[in-house]
Amino acid sequence: MERPAPLITLTTDFGMSDGTVGAMLGVIKSICPSAEIANIAHDVPPQDIVHGAWALYQAAPFFPAETIHVAVVDPGVGTRRRAVLIETEHGTFVGPDSGVLAWAAEQAGPRRYFAIENTSYRLGPRGLTFDGRDLFAPVAAHLANGVDATQIGVEIPSIVDLTWPEPVADEGRVAGEILLEDRFGNLVTNIPMALLAQVFGDAGMLVILEGRPVGGLSAGYAAIDGKLGAVINGSGLLEIASPGDSASALTGRRRGDRVVVTGRVSS
Amino acid sequence: MERPAPLITLTTDFGMSDGTVGAMLGVIKSICPSAEIANIAHDVPPQDIVHGAWALYQAAPFFPAETIHVAVVDPGVGTRRRAVLIETEHGTFVGPDSGVLAWAAEQAGPRRYFAIENTSYRLGPRGLTFDGRDLFAPVAAHLANGVDATQIGVEIPSIVDLTWPEPVADEGRVAGEILLEDRFGNLVTNIPMALLAQVFGDAGMLVILEGRPVGGLSAGYAAIDGKLGAVINGSGLLEIASPGDSASALTGRRRGDRVVVTGRVSS
Amino acid sequence: MERPAPLITLTTDFGMSDGTVGAMLGVIKSICPSAEIANIAHDVPPQDIVHGAWALYQAAPFFPAETIHVAVVDPGVGTRRRAVLIETEHGTFVGPDSGVLAWAAEQAGPRRYFAIENTSYRLGPRGLTFDGRDLFAPVAAHLANGVDATQIGVEIPSIVDLTWPEPVADEGRVAGEILLEDRFGNLVTNIPMALLAQVFGDAGMLVILEGRPVGGLSAGYAAIDGKLGAVINGSGLLEIASPGDSASALTGRRRGDRVVVTGRVSS
Repeated sequence: MERPAPLITLTTDFGMSDGTVGAMLGVIKSICPSAEIANIAHDVPPQDIVHGAWALYQAAPFFPAETIHVAVVDPGVGTRRRAVLIETEHGTFVGPDSGVLAWAAEQAGPRRYFAIENTSYRLGPRGLTFDGRDLFAPVAAHLANGVDATQIGVEIPSIVDLTWPEPVADEGRVAGEILLEDRFGNLVTNIPMALLAQVFGDAGMLVILEGRPVGGLSAGYAAIDGKLGAVINGSGLLEIASPGDSASALTGRRRGDRVVVTGRVSS
Repeated sequence: MERPAPLITLTTDFGMSDGTVGAMLGVIKSICPSAEIANIAHDVPPQDIVHGAWALYQAAPFFPAETIHVAVVDPGVGTRRRAVLIETEHGTFVGPDSGVLAWAAEQAGPRRYFAIENTSYRLGPRGLTFDGRDLFAPVAAHLANGVDATQIGVEIPSIVDLTWPEPVADEGRVAGEILLEDRFGNLVTNIPMALLAQVFGDAGMLVILEGRPVGGLSAGYAAIDGKLGAVINGSGLLEIASPGDSASALTGRRRGDRVVVTGRVSS
Repeated sequence: MERPAPLITLTTDFGMSDGTVGAMLGVIKSICPSAEIANIAHDVPPQDIVHGAWALYQAAPFFPAETIHVAVVDPGVGTRRRAVLIETEHGTFVGPDSGVLAWAAEQAGPRRYFAIENTSYRLGPRGLTFDGRDLFAPVAAHLANGVDATQIGVEIPSIVDLTWPEPVADEGRVAGEILLEDRFGNLVTNIPMALLAQVFGDAGMLVILEGRPVGGLSAGYAAIDGKLGAVINGSGLLEIASPGDSASALTGRRRGDRVVVTGRVSS
């Protein structure tokens, strides 16, 4: 069987209203004509590193292990923040060292971290503010062409971390927080299904959002009985949702707000 | 000539702000590396089945007949709604049995309907709420690899219907309704050009929106003379538009509101 | 090495909520199955020719020279506005003669202009308002198949121009205007870096937005010290930005508003 074309994914906060994503596509196709490009997300909220990191974290594990992932949410472009490249067990990651790569790279089993320092892979300067086009796209395309990471960067011990707020389990009670809100207004929390199973087993649970009881765990959005409910989402995290409505709009709750799960008192 | 790569289209309400579409892309490329993926629409309004069905209906007939179309607008995910696969004269359709496939499949000449029951094509459970990634993407990719529909599902007599409101022609008058509003604020109606031609021939028409005369039929948006007018849109349906403005915002009218076309009295 | 697949880019104001972009993709893949399609931008603000022209201008130079670029922002569809095809030093451009192609084609070094007149490349009429699907997509796909431009159109001396407002340099002062606002709320001006370098050399500058001093030139968004600042953007143009905020929302300024750059008085 023929070797498949190199696959490069893009995750940015550039939107699809101007030519910035297109410029990255063009750079990649000019340097590596055989590359295939998959757009993960371009409507990440502007400069929202957590949201971009989450998008890449959700998608990257499902791509083939040889995939090269570029993510650019980069409020520090033009400053001395590093540009990095991470080789992992499952994919290579390229982008600014803003934290946007952190969760996906960690999940993928990092092997080696590099700071991108070889400026010969950078496009000549047209401006100072577009490393997506001038640095990350060309680096990804050269990797796709078979250039080795050691030719592009120098090994470094680690990259900038992006804190994943850890939930706390204590005396039959799990406390966490809202990680972010998705397009449907669902409130994604940092509480994993596995932790709930460990603490509550098969017993009933009650999800409480900043003091407001939300109810128990439903099998899916449509199974929620009432205005608000909780489900396990596609990433295995507890999520607060409102069927046919936005839980975020309904409750006014947002990233960082507190979520507690307790045992349900049977009566 | 070489056989072209299998082509899979995606239509969802997932948006492009997180990693859900990307996860589907990754699953497909992991199972069928040669598959080519065309994104029809991902900004379908959340859980709006009619809008998703319309998007697929508009686009699917223009793809090659071998194309595999996946559409996921799926408020019932996690409940017992069926997952279906439809073989037609012009394309194969995969998705939830929510109605989102109904118009496109009907238009394409359905041959056989299947309920997707073979769970060996499903990805292992990470959560309960993401069949786009865990069921529909893998099924499409296995179809692209040549797996037969009969290995994936069991034949069923029909799928859930999505009502297409039929216009009524009576005594030189056609009554219909607004089907939906597009990105430009144009109000797409359920009244086809062919019906208007049959009732009015070459005679003049007057389009009336909930009692408000909109005017006659213009040759195109720019030919509309006044704030509001009517055109035949790209799908051959009567549409109410406002040149350079949103007819929807201007009139406050929306899906389901009544549209009547009468003969124009010459004076 | 194998010849790469023909590459076609799409830039439209169709959005990704319905099937209009998908229909164009389908038409192209039906006529030229080997074509690869890159989506530059589909969320161009509705009927905003300047914004569409800007998107194409930003992206097109980065694609390979053989690329075929289709751009459709087309308020005059259905009227007698021409459909055009432009052969340039770097790419072929196809679209309505609305101005949307003007900046990119001019930048790419135009060789020959054509009015698309051979109706045999048009899809049969389904409606009158969708030339993106019925005319521009098929023309691009036939070009990708190797059909010569002279078979599709007749040569014409020029296309509709889209005015690029020229900045004025006078007595150590540069006056320009806001060209448009991007997704981040940054205000892109028509003042190029090269002109600033010529007028001010290494001397300090002060950017003034409609009488309000914005400050000097920063090395990048994150280097802006204060609520508002100025940078050179990825296209080499002066841009007014607010770190982590929208300069547009903050100032209420918009397209066409005046921007002046003066020398900075040292004290």
